Amino acid sequence: MAGREFELIYRHLGLFGAGSQVSLGVGDDGAVLTLPPNSELVVSSDSLVEGTHFPELTLPEYVATRAIAAAASDLAAMAADPLAMTLALTLPEPDELWLHSFSQGVERCVEALALPLVGGDLTRGPLSVTVTVMGSVPTGCAMKRSGAEPGDRLCVTHTLGDAAAGLALIMGQLPRDIEVPLEDEEFLEARFYQPTARMEWVPWLREHAHAAIDISDGLLADTEHIADASGCACTIDSTALPLSPALSRFDQALKVDWALAGGDDYELAVAVPPGVVLPPELRQVGEFHEGSGVQCDYRPNARKGFDHFGA
Amino acid sequence: MAGREFELIYRHLGLFGAGSQVSLGVGDDGAVLTLPPNSELVVSSDSLVEGTHFPELTLPEYVATRAIAAAASDLAAMAADPLAMTLALTLPEPDELWLHSFSQGVERCVEALALPLVGGDLTRGPLSVTVTVMGSVPTGCAMKRSGAEPGDRLCVTHTLGDAAAGLALIMGQLPRDIEVPLEDEEFLEARFYQPTARMEWVPWLREHAHAAIDISDGLLADTEHIADASGCACTIDSTALPLSPALSRFDQALKVDWALAGGDDYELAVAVPPGVVLPPELRQVGEFHEGSGVQCDYRPNARKGFDHFGA
Repeated sequence: MAGREFELIYRHLGLFGAGSQVSLGVGDDGAVLTLPPNSELVVSSDSLVEGTHFPELTLPEYVATRAIAAAASDLAAMAADPLAMTLALTLPEPDELWLHSFSQGVERCVEALALPLVGGDLTRGPLSVTVTVMGSVPTGCAMKRSGAEPGDRLCVTHTLGDAAAGLALIMGQLPRDIEVPLEDEEFLEARFYQPTARMEWVPWLREHAHAAIDISDGLLADTEHIADASGCACTIDSTALPLSPALSRFDQALKVDWALAGGDDYELAVAVPPGVVLPPELRQVGEFHEGSGVQCDYRPNARKGFDHFGA
Repeated sequence: MAGREFELIYRHLGLFGAGSQVSLGVGDDGAVLTLPPNSELVVSSDSLVEGTHFPELTLPEYVATRAIAAAASDLAAMAADPLAMTLALTLPEPDELWLHSFSQGVERCVEALALPLVGGDLTRGPLSVTVTVMGSVPTGCAMKRSGAEPGDRLCVTHTLGDAAAGLALIMGQLPRDIEVPLEDEEFLEARFYQPTARMEWVPWLREHAHAAIDISDGLLADTEHIADASGCACTIDSTALPLSPALSRFDQALKVDWALAGGDDYELAVAVPPGVVLPPELRQVGEFHEGSGVQCDYRPNARKGFDHFGA
C-alpha cells in the first residue's frame, strides 16, 4: 500500500513544517514558501551515504544531525538566512525505531537552525540522506567564494580538527599507545556526529566579510577554493590554528594534520578585509595576497580533504 | 584530491546554469535565484534508487530523464512555473562514460522543461539520484490536492498505463504468448524511460482547475490522495480511460490494470469544475461527489500503486 510510505513520512517527518514563511508544508506535491521582500533564494543540496560519509551503524539521530549541518553550513557560508529544507531518505527497510531516532535528530536541527522541514521523500535502498536547504539573502548580498582580496585576513569560526579526531576515535584508527580521557572522547565524537552550522555568523558576515566557505574538505582544500575563485593566494600559519583542549593533548603530527587537512568540521573559513575589528571568537589563521595557491609552513601527511572518488 | 570530484561535476553538470532567474549557478556553496515579483516558491524533492525505481543497467541518460520528470511533474501538479533544480547523484565509481550519457539526459530535460540545473552533489555509493525542483507561483495560486469539490470532473492529461507496460516489457515479465511489434515496444519503453512532465498545462490549471496531482502511484491511488485531501469521493469509469494504440493491443485484464494501477506515467490527474469547457487533450475519466474514497467499476489485480515499502 502506497499509504504506508506516506504514513511513515508524516508520522516522523511531517511535524516540522511550521514557520511564518511556510504557506504549505509536507503533504502535497510540493511545499509553498514565501521569501522576504527584495531578497533572493539561496539553495544547496548535500548527500551523505553510509560507509562513505559516516560509519555503518551510526546512531540514526546522528545521521540526521550530520546531514543537516553539512547542508545548512552552506547557507551560513553564503550569508543566507534560513528558509526551509527538504530531506530525501533512502532506507533498506521500513524501521520505526530507526525513524524515531532519526526524527529526533531532525527535530533538534529544525529548532536550532530555524529551518523547517517542508518536504520528505522516503524510498527503499541503501542508506543515504540528501538534504536540500533553502535560504534568503537581500538581493545582491549573497557571499561568494570569489570576493577575497589581497590583504584580507583568513579567519575561522571555531576550533579545527575535532571532527577528524572524533572520526579516528569512532573508527578505532588511533595508535594503541594513545589514551584519550572519556570526556575528551565524547567531545570529539560529538564534533563529528553533531557539527554546528554557523548560522549565528550570518549577520556579521553580511556586514563585514569579503568571502566565506564552509570547511568540509579541510582548511587547506577549502581555502584553496576561495583563493582560486578570488584569483589570489593565501598563506596559512599552522601555529595560529585554534585547537580545542581535547585536541591539544595529541601529538603535533596528528593534531595539526587534522586541523589542516581533516574535513567535516563545518566551521566557516572567512576572508575579512583589513580594518575590520575581529570579534574574539573569530581566529585569524592566515592572509590573502597577490599570486595563486595556498602556502603553509606545515605539510600534512593526511590526504588533502576527503575525496569520495579519490584513491 | 577533492578537486577531482568538483571537476567531474563541473565538466558534466556545470554547463546548465543559465537562465535570467539564475544570479549564481553551480560552483559556490549554493546557487542564487530570483523569483518573479509577488510570487511564492514551490519546492519538491524526489529520489530514484537503482533496483527500486529503475532496473539495473538502465541507460544513464534514462536515469536522468526519469528522475527529473518525476520531480518536475510535481511542479506541474502545483501549477508552478519552473525556476531551477539541484541534483544529488550517488555513483559506485567515477565513470566518465556513465556521466556523459547521464548529462545528455540532464541537458535534454533542462531545455525541454526550462529548468536550469544550479547545484550538483556527486558522492560515492550505490546508484541513486535525488532531484529537488523549485518553481514559482503567483502568491496564493499554488494548486493543492485539497481543492476538489463534488461535481468536479476527474480528467487526465494523456494516455495511462503505457509506462507500466513499458516496464513489464523491459523486465521481461509479459506472458510468453504475447508478441509486441517493435514500434509499440519502443513507444511503451520510452514512456517509462522518458516520461513527460506536463509543464505545458500549468497556465490552464492555474486558470481553470480545482486540484491536481501527478500520477506516480497509479490513477486509483493518486485520485484517492485528492479525494482524501478534499474530503470527498470520486468514481472512476474504467471504460473512459484513454489508452494508447500500443496499449490497446493488450488483453483487457492487462491494459486496464496498468492504466488504473500502474504508476510511473507522471501524467496529471486534475479536478475540473463544472462549466469549464474541456480542451480536447484533457480526457474525463471520473467525477467527484459527496462521500469518501474512490470507486471504480473495475477492480485491478495489480497492487495499487508502487510502494517502496510494500510487501
